Amino acid sequence: MSDRPGPEATARLTRWEQRTEVPLFLAGLLFLTGYAVRVLAPHDAQPWHDISLTLVWSTWLLFLVDYVTRLRLSGLGYRFPRVHWLDTVVLLLPLLRPLRMVQVYQAVQRRRDRPRLNLYARVMTYAGMTVGLLGFAAALAVYNLEHRTPDASIRTFGDAVWWACATLTTVGYGDATPVTFWGRVVAAGLMACGLALLGAVTGSFSSWLIQVFAREDEKRPPERG
Amino acid sequence: MSDRPGPEATARLTRWEQRTEVPLFLAGLLFLTGYAVRVLAPHDAQPWHDISLTLVWSTWLLFLVDYVTRLRLSGLGYRFPRVHWLDTVVLLLPLLRPLRMVQVYQAVQRRRDRPRLNLYARVMTYAGMTVGLLGFAAALAVYNLEHRTPDASIRTFGDAVWWACATLTTVGYGDATPVTFWGRVVAAGLMACGLALLGAVTGSFSSWLIQVFAREDEKRPPERG
Amino acid sequence: MSDRPGPEATARLTRWEQRTEVPLFLAGLLFLTGYAVRVLAPHDAQPWHDISLTLVWSTWLLFLVDYVTRLRLSGLGYRFPRVHWLDTVVLLLPLLRPLRMVQVYQAVQRRRDRPRLNLYARVMTYAGMTVGLLGFAAALAVYNLEHRTPDASIRTFGDAVWWACATLTTVGYGDATPVTFWGRVVAAGLMACGLALLGAVTGSFSSWLIQVFAREDEKRPPERG
Amino acid sequence: MSDRPGPEATARLTRWEQRTEVPLFLAGLLFLTGYAVRVLAPHDAQPWHDISLTLVWSTWLLFLVDYVTRLRLSGLGYRFPRVHWLDTVVLLLPLLRPLRMVQVYQAVQRRRDRPRLNLYARVMTYAGMTVGLLGFAAALAVYNLEHRTPDASIRTFGDAVWWACATLTTVGYGDATPVTFWGRVVAAGLMACGLALLGAVTGSFSSWLIQVFAREDEKRPPERG
Repeated sequence: MSDRPGPEATARLTRWEQRTEVPLFLAGLLFLTGYAVRVLAPHDAQPWHDISLTLVWSTWLLFLVDYVTRLRLSGLGYRFPRVHWLDTVVLLLPLLRPLRMVQVYQAVQRRRDRPRLNLYARVMTYAGMTVGLLGFAAALAVYNLEHRTPDASIRTFGDAVWWACATLTTVGYGDATPVTFWGRVVAAGLMACGLALLGAVTGSFSSWLIQVFAREDEKRPPERG
Repeated sequence: MSDRPGPEATARLTRWEQRTEVPLFLAGLLFLTGYAVRVLAPHDAQPWHDISLTLVWSTWLLFLVDYVTRLRLSGLGYRFPRVHWLDTVVLLLPLLRPLRMVQVYQAVQRRRDRPRLNLYARVMTYAGMTVGLLGFAAALAVYNLEHRTPDASIRTFGDAVWWACATLTTVGYGDATPVTFWGRVVAAGLMACGLALLGAVTGSFSSWLIQVFAREDEKRPPERG
Repeated sequence: MSDRPGPEATARLTRWEQRTEVPLFLAGLLFLTGYAVRVLAPHDAQPWHDISLTLVWSTWLLFLVDYVTRLRLSGLGYRFPRVHWLDTVVLLLPLLRPLRMVQVYQAVQRRRDRPRLNLYARVMTYAGMTVGLLGFAAALAVYNLEHRTPDASIRTFGDAVWWACATLTTVGYGDATPVTFWGRVVAAGLMACGLALLGAVTGSFSSWLIQVFAREDEKRPPERG
Repeated sequence: MSDRPGPEATARLTRWEQRTEVPLFLAGLLFLTGYAVRVLAPHDAQPWHDISLTLVWSTWLLFLVDYVTRLRLSGLGYRFPRVHWLDTVVLLLPLLRPLRMVQVYQAVQRRRDRPRLNLYARVMTYAGMTVGLLGFAAALAVYNLEHRTPDASIRTFGDAVWWACATLTTVGYGDATPVTFWGRVVAAGLMACGLALLGAVTGSFSSWLIQVFAREDEKRPPERG
């Protein structure tokens, strides 16, 4: 009852993942755009509504095709959803797709082949981008769920973005907060995912700053002796 | 005036603790369930009320039996409460029992004998689960203490859970806050216990992310040279 | 223009500090008690008022005597206030005295000579105690400054303690906040001093937890091989 | 298409930067003073208005001259804005100038040639000063943008400073929050810049405290043996 595929299955899976990671990232951005159009366009704006529906469903179909292909390539069968649980969650809730960005980020950097950023800068860039996209997705979802509620404090998309900023940084002013059940569920998810990532940004920045100052100490002595 | 038991007493105590840790964890979950039923069931629902009372008191009796057995096995006599002060606190306030989860967690992992998670993942899993259970227990207690107060902002159990999420992540919107004395004492306790544990989750996640990126650096060179 | 005293001056100063640290700590507690009585006692309760005035001024006189003695022992003259700036600040604002607790803590532990706590536990104990005393002093000061203001949200001492808890943990509900100028100055000071210390508690706890899990890894192998 | 200038260009650039860093820092302080006068002086106070305009524009001209000189010295041509993107941002938004303080701080310390602070103390001093100046600049900007809005909660400059304190420490009471679009943009920027820096302060303090306690452990043994 091994949860790990054989070596050739792994190789096939890796090749597939390397080839699809950038297209899937673009599909993820299109999905987010489609969702944004659906949420933000006025309700009687027919062309926008159709465009957004097409974008959302066609990109989701791509995600499904990718998931099924990887399930078959892996040779894991019914154990795939449990082993690759993050992929399963991301398939069902595509707004969480930024969480898989770590692979895309590596792929993009590998292709450009430019002098790589140092370790801390890369952690900060990756975690910062993921947090930004997650926060944007959460602001869209919360705006969609809240703005028609009678006693809502989040009434415009600007309020929702402001709420997302105040939540991710744990400032939490409380001047704009979700009041519906599902809005609060999204908010709790944003706190859980986002805070850990923001902790990574802060931690990396702190380590990097200490490194910068420590390196200067090493450079200084010859200047004196 | 040594606070440490002799070697054979330690061995007996260890054997007892290893045998009882999983049953006690299940008893702790039953206690929490009983308390949840007592708090959340409507007041005239007689069968639920009886069930919850039975659960709470019978599990607490188990905790007492375990405490007394360990007190006698340890051979420490009247010094036991001071040496094992965390156990004493947990006996008197069984809602704090999640704090003892570290032993249970180890025991469960040892039995399943599966490839162990890495260090950071284990710290995150343990601290995350403890925080989750503590937050649930605090939400129950605060709901119980607050929801009948005239000027309360925590009126439903959903409000209490929302308050616990906002408190544990230090977001603190302030749209739902305890107003009674005992509600605020519970809240202060949740802040003190929970924040340290959440700091552990964030810190471990940050360290793990840096480790993941650092490991990739080691893998990359052969790809180039 | 050396800022450092000679070796025999240092020895004399060290001896004086070792002898006075516990009495000064007790004087600090008496000062806090006196201030608490002055703030919390009803205004027409004459005996309490006199007792608190006596306590506050006599302990402050002790602090002054200690400061002048150390100034003369150090042989630094007019440079003493600049070199020992923390002592100067603490003399002028005795409510900040918990900040000097690190020396007391060491002295007490040295005397009891019991098996010392590990590094992280000591940092946590020291920082936690300092934070607790600073928070209590800030709650007293804010209550004193705020509770007679017409539009204050801090009206009882319980409110002030609740505000201090929510501020130190950075939860910041905002249901009780200072509104006067000096109340906000005290609050900003509490944020600045307290948060750094609380960061130390969280950081130490996180490091300690990782250490506990790492040590278990070392213990486990023999159990298997 | 190298982004790095040749060695002699680097040497010339470094010499220019070393000579200008202290004058530029003073110009930055003058800019901030001029902006503060413009924001805080009553609107009909003609002399103050003129002084502030002169200060702001003449210092900005200095920044422009410095930027153009460095652009020409570097020999990078049109690639300069992209390579030195932080300098470009700081030229366009001079209120962000504290972010470049790390160089100034080093320069000042080098000149005074006094026994250097340890690593953590320097990180704390640098990050603390940067956070303080950024917070002051943000408070000025938010006060300027908000105080004439009808439903503003930030009405005096004191409110704006109080808001900046509560935001930078992530306490976020919510009793004073920006309500206009641009006010919220400034606030989001303050959260993003400030929190990372404050994380550096907290992290360094925590590391320093652990170091202090660890060093004491090393000193203690001879006292006993």
